[in-house]
Amino acid sequence: MKQNNFQVVGLWGRPGQPLVEHTLEQLILWLQARGCTPVLESSTAIFLPDQGLQIAGAAMLGEICDLVIVVGGDGCLLGAARALAKQSTYILGVNRGQLGFLTDITPSELDSQLSSIFEGRYHVEQRFLLDGSLTRNGGMIAAGDAVNDVVLHAGQAVQMISFELYINGEFVYSQKSDGLIVATPTGSTAYALSAGGPMMHPGLDAMVLVPMCPHTLTNRPIVVAGGVEIKMALGESRGVMPHISFDGQTSIAAQPGDVLYIRKKPHRLQLIHPHGYTFYAAARSKLGWASRLTSSGSDYDDD
Amino acid sequence: MKQNNFQVVGLWGRPGQPLVEHTLEQLILWLQARGCTPVLESSTAIFLPDQGLQIAGAAMLGEICDLVIVVGGDGCLLGAARALAKQSTYILGVNRGQLGFLTDITPSELDSQLSSIFEGRYHVEQRFLLDGSLTRNGGMIAAGDAVNDVVLHAGQAVQMISFELYINGEFVYSQKSDGLIVATPTGSTAYALSAGGPMMHPGLDAMVLVPMCPHTLTNRPIVVAGGVEIKMALGESRGVMPHISFDGQTSIAAQPGDVLYIRKKPHRLQLIHPHGYTFYAAARSKLGWASRLTSSGSDYDDD
Amino acid sequence: MKQNNFQVVGLWGRPGQPLVEHTLEQLILWLQARGCTPVLESSTAIFLPDQGLQIAGAAMLGEICDLVIVVGGDGCLLGAARALAKQSTYILGVNRGQLGFLTDITPSELDSQLSSIFEGRYHVEQRFLLDGSLTRNGGMIAAGDAVNDVVLHAGQAVQMISFELYINGEFVYSQKSDGLIVATPTGSTAYALSAGGPMMHPGLDAMVLVPMCPHTLTNRPIVVAGGVEIKMALGESRGVMPHISFDGQTSIAAQPGDVLYIRKKPHRLQLIHPHGYTFYAAARSKLGWASRLTSSGSDYDDD
Amino acid sequence: MKQNNFQVVGLWGRPGQPLVEHTLEQLILWLQARGCTPVLESSTAIFLPDQGLQIAGAAMLGEICDLVIVVGGDGCLLGAARALAKQSTYILGVNRGQLGFLTDITPSELDSQLSSIFEGRYHVEQRFLLDGSLTRNGGMIAAGDAVNDVVLHAGQAVQMISFELYINGEFVYSQKSDGLIVATPTGSTAYALSAGGPMMHPGLDAMVLVPMCPHTLTNRPIVVAGGVEIKMALGESRGVMPHISFDGQTSIAAQPGDVLYIRKKPHRLQLIHPHGYTFYAAARSKLGWASRLTSSGSDYDDD
Repeated sequence: MKQNNFQVVGLWGRPGQPLVEHTLEQLILWLQARGCTPVLESSTAIFLPDQGLQIAGAAMLGEICDLVIVVGGDGCLLGAARALAKQSTYILGVNRGQLGFLTDITPSELDSQLSSIFEGRYHVEQRFLLDGSLTRNGGMIAAGDAVNDVVLHAGQAVQMISFELYINGEFVYSQKSDGLIVATPTGSTAYALSAGGPMMHPGLDAMVLVPMCPHTLTNRPIVVAGGVEIKMALGESRGVMPHISFDGQTSIAAQPGDVLYIRKKPHRLQLIHPHGYTFYAAARSKLGWASRLTSSGSDYDDD
Repeated sequence: MKQNNFQVVGLWGRPGQPLVEHTLEQLILWLQARGCTPVLESSTAIFLPDQGLQIAGAAMLGEICDLVIVVGGDGCLLGAARALAKQSTYILGVNRGQLGFLTDITPSELDSQLSSIFEGRYHVEQRFLLDGSLTRNGGMIAAGDAVNDVVLHAGQAVQMISFELYINGEFVYSQKSDGLIVATPTGSTAYALSAGGPMMHPGLDAMVLVPMCPHTLTNRPIVVAGGVEIKMALGESRGVMPHISFDGQTSIAAQPGDVLYIRKKPHRLQLIHPHGYTFYAAARSKLGWASRLTSSGSDYDDD
Repeated sequence: MKQNNFQVVGLWGRPGQPLVEHTLEQLILWLQARGCTPVLESSTAIFLPDQGLQIAGAAMLGEICDLVIVVGGDGCLLGAARALAKQSTYILGVNRGQLGFLTDITPSELDSQLSSIFEGRYHVEQRFLLDGSLTRNGGMIAAGDAVNDVVLHAGQAVQMISFELYINGEFVYSQKSDGLIVATPTGSTAYALSAGGPMMHPGLDAMVLVPMCPHTLTNRPIVVAGGVEIKMALGESRGVMPHISFDGQTSIAAQPGDVLYIRKKPHRLQLIHPHGYTFYAAARSKLGWASRLTSSGSDYDDD
Repeated sequence: MKQNNFQVVGLWGRPGQPLVEHTLEQLILWLQARGCTPVLESSTAIFLPDQGLQIAGAAMLGEICDLVIVVGGDGCLLGAARALAKQSTYILGVNRGQLGFLTDITPSELDSQLSSIFEGRYHVEQRFLLDGSLTRNGGMIAAGDAVNDVVLHAGQAVQMISFELYINGEFVYSQKSDGLIVATPTGSTAYALSAGGPMMHPGLDAMVLVPMCPHTLTNRPIVVAGGVEIKMALGESRGVMPHISFDGQTSIAAQPGDVLYIRKKPHRLQLIHPHGYTFYAAARSKLGWASRLTSSGSDYDDD
């Protein structure tokens, strides 16, 4: 019987959204009724004053909680995931109506899905994260984590940057482009997809490198093993100051001559899914893929 | 006999490149030997001191010259073209080795090609320009010209902007993306191409709208008539300050609520080509397209 | 007062579909009630026996009718359009629920829309057609018409063909690929779109050439003026028998050495639209483009 | 000392090409001079009569040879690889001038590269193959192997087929398209690339599914683990007879209702490379990727 697995449960929501606050309040009541101890993430707590609950920063939250429930879109979950990955805390995503790739419980099914999950009917999916380190003259000057993608870009759009790409120390090419997206399977359905990259099943141990507006038309997306080391040596860029973005949410500035390393992190995001969740079902919903063929012959579409 | 058509000839080069300076000096001698009057564009003149030549700013150059020879890449010619389009001055592009779409004479063939052109063996190709006007509360606050493209973008890459698109006053869609490229046929082989747009023959009276990393995968490039009015109403963008770029060379800042209008300019770029030039030959050279099929059966390629 | 414009009205439907037959029967009653004379296209008539109506083949239908109403999808309308283009007969498309790019009246709004149209509230949109002629040793051996596209392809997929492309007699490139789609603006939202081509506004006087799985990655879609002559000279293809398809509906077989010419037809498809129809609205509906941005701030999407 | 590793060496070449025959003759002399025993593949032997050498069919060749040298393009090597994979015979590819992804020794470097390889300076790269099985009413009716790709397609281009896709038994989507390419990493740089798929490093244990001209624009390439089972259930296709192709070289016919299974084969292609070979170097050569950035500032490219 796994039902008491989740005793201390963190709550994390994107602040300032009435729908999110309403769902968070529902969750507090639901958890208390069940005898669990809700803990509010500190920036979330600002928007839910006077609840009399324990409040914890992201790092502490990861340590003390058996589970953190994130209320918001996929973007909100990315931030929580980067913060909580070190402690391998279980994370569950609740969206606000629109199905996400990472947030797969909707408010309308909150009660039934949560009940199932707290009774032990869930599965845990591991997603890997990326670590980006920027070095100058051989010393590391900045670093960041990403669940979706690390993006080297011109800082200012409509400016090309140039860099040399190495994979496991092997020279690949030099590229002039708006930038290069290095995405995990998780990120392959986000920014990398709109830049022309392929989708990758989230269980795949691989990364995809997607060039953004490359000067050379044959610079196509490349899928490589998850364990490789990506190295980009920045060339001269005529006054452009390249930036490196992590999940499109945090960013660091680079200079010509800097070298960026991207590697898989040792930590994993531990994502809880209700039974029945599949990546392909999420993709069908998000991308409008067609459902099963009808055998009735009523599919009269001759466009 | 057209050979005395080009009497006063402007010279415009990208400064600071030895190869460019060398070609400019060659051109001065060639023109003087032919009895023509070379005039140096003022920023070009800084790099060619002590020539004892007349110097003129861009506007004056367009007025007094029968022809302006631009030495450099396609990028350099764009700047000259925007400056000279108002006076419909003839422009001839000389590149420095690498064939361009706009600069189609190489230094090695300079003498023979110029001789032909000055003897009247050339044709004039007209390219249209775009005018971008940014309005706020109904009043125009900034404007710019473009030979290649007007690009609305996030200013910072890896940030989405949102806007509504109207064509001839008709609502098309609202879009979330990194930005939208509006390109002339001339620009269709430049930035728009690397963003996934089609090539357009330079003689076509049309524009192409190419979304950059659109959130919706069905937001595909759209080709519309050259005479339409493009209108983009900027939506809220969460702290992102959209920019509008002209040929990737000049840029203006915008705000949520601003409206950008893009229309064809009345002026035309008057581009001089040597006989034998064709757009498709330039494309074959630049893009590595295959040449004629051999009938000899030696094309043994079974990859 | 235009209300008696449409006196003799042809009816053309894709046979064997109960929904189509039902709509055709509705139309017959509606037309008779209005005092118009319905005429059944002959293959349509087979599925609607005992109506006591005049029956006419496609050619006759074009001659005697003021308007032909086509019931079915876009694909059905293509066939009618090719048959009726020569007589410039007005065509109105009624689909069976799902909006089409060409068939923009749904059964549910049939009565109100038809009433408006028969009272003169409509506009006529002209679409051009393509003419494809296959020649062998200088003589024409087969030809066909297309509203959407003329496609040169390998006959068998997964086999490359090779050909030389000429535009207005000028050599463009030789290509190895699965084939080449030459599409009108009308066809740009059909097969050409799924092969990676751009959309083109239907009013544009242009064609797009979209290579199918080209061996050379820089063989990108090219948009050219509607008035040009496209010429493809077929090379050796190792046992592959190339085919030429017209709107994906009719097909002719070719041989190595054959030459295919594609030109705009002098005839135009005369398409009737109810007031309020726009191409962009159809595209929004068909492609799921986003509607107007809300100003209420409720657009909470952080994926 | 590994130099006597390769004693019995098979020779396999695409017949009917003078360059190929010449290289084969060189190889025979080179091997005999070295004391090795050349064996001719039987179809190759037809074009090299009177050599007095042992001749063997493909299956026998794999059994008796320590190494098979294939002379021709990548396409030729695919055929040999499918035939020899079962015996895990080492294969070495010699092309005829043009570098291939699989055939990475050119005739001009034949002697030096072979000497190195026969002295033991080589590495072995394993590539996996696909197995495609077509079933009807639960029983297998046909099967095939592929090094590059298994392609389900319409048989006739410009005809859509419809099918349901399942991965590891899980429903993914139903698709209408010209077909679907299932490619290995080896095949990702061949047909799948021209259909819009990503490149995959050959060492990756993954497959890519690339839809061909899909009716739904969001049906994008998907990368999945190499160990999954792909299942495609064929729907009704209006008179179209779908086909399944293996490496574009062999083909079987299917019917509506048939089910195609694609799985990784247990056998591996054992590819010999000279020291210094890398996939990225081959890609740079084949795709024209840019080489190292120069630090001299002479990279004057402002297009």
